[in-house]
Amino acid sequence: MNVSHASVHPVEEVPTTEGGVAVAEQQNVNVPMVVRMKDIQGMPGTVGGLALRVSQFVFGAAALSIIASTNDFSSVTAFCFLVAAAGLQTLWSISLAITDIYAILVRRSLQNYRLVCTFTIGDGVTSTLMFAAACASVGITVLIDNDLDNCSYNHCVQFETATGMAFICWFTTVPSFLLNFWSLASR
Amino acid sequence: MNVSHASVHPVEEVPTTEGGVAVAEQQNVNVPMVVRMKDIQGMPGTVGGLALRVSQFVFGAAALSIIASTNDFSSVTAFCFLVAAAGLQTLWSISLAITDIYAILVRRSLQNYRLVCTFTIGDGVTSTLMFAAACASVGITVLIDNDLDNCSYNHCVQFETATGMAFICWFTTVPSFLLNFWSLASR
Repeated sequence: MNVSHASVHPVEEVPTTEGGVAVAEQQNVNVPMVVRMKDIQGMPGTVGGLALRVSQFVFGAAALSIIASTNDFSSVTAFCFLVAAAGLQTLWSISLAITDIYAILVRRSLQNYRLVCTFTIGDGVTSTLMFAAACASVGITVLIDNDLDNCSYNHCVQFETATGMAFICWFTTVPSFLLNFWSLASR
Repeated sequence: MNVSHASVHPVEEVPTTEGGVAVAEQQNVNVPMVVRMKDIQGMPGTVGGLALRVSQFVFGAAALSIIASTNDFSSVTAFCFLVAAAGLQTLWSISLAITDIYAILVRRSLQNYRLVCTFTIGDGVTSTLMFAAACASVGITVLIDNDLDNCSYNHCVQFETATGMAFICWFTTVPSFLLNFWSLASR
């Protein structure tokens, strides 16, 4: 049983694994703090988690569409990397958002060990790629704008806006990763 | 008491907080798995942790000295940022390495809650800055080398070597951060 823990006795009294905590709460069973930690907002299957996923999708898609709307992004490797990373991030976030909506609608807990492990690794990889792409892009943008002062024949505004969106997207990915990692470690 | 946990009773029998685990081990008290997790290699106060800190210092210092040895790094903001981030990283790593050496020599545990919290935040900030600087630098390096093919009058070899060192430095910082965060969450 994946959610078993020395101090979590009430979970053993309910028949299913994944719905254990929700059923225990409905029955007003005194659930210890270790299990309560798993239900804090921002984790998978909560409204806060869904809000984070939707934000990630919106800002990732914004970064992707803004950078792709310029005709010369493909001449700079960092911007191509940003397109790829933002594409991967939006696909990952929309998948997890759909999973969260499903979990909220059918009141199912997503605190299964393998699921949380998958979410943690996925969030870690996508957020690292997104941050790397955003940093590489900001390096190029600052070079063009500040160091070379070359904005007259470059799409500086689009590049800077897309980079900003990528950073906001990363900021909303980090809480998802940290909360999942915390949930994994506190078992 | 900082290390108190619902399932950790033996720790309450010893008088000090920081030496609690060590004293419990000397007395052959049956310490549960939650406390054993805190002693795995790579965490502060262990030989593995010291090795990570020394690696971070060596690669951070290498990145710093290689990029600073070029005469035109200051014309690119990303390289200046790399110098600042590598400087901060080496200062942080050498401080923690000295702390680790002290802890190993006097056989003191560094698993105090506030200390681990400080190490986690410090590692998180320095590794994020180091990764950001490395990514920004690699963006510039790839732009100069691949996109513009401008290596004839730029120090491409030094820039690429410094960026590589910065990435290796980051790779050795991530385990420190993750182990500290894990240690914090598994209390």
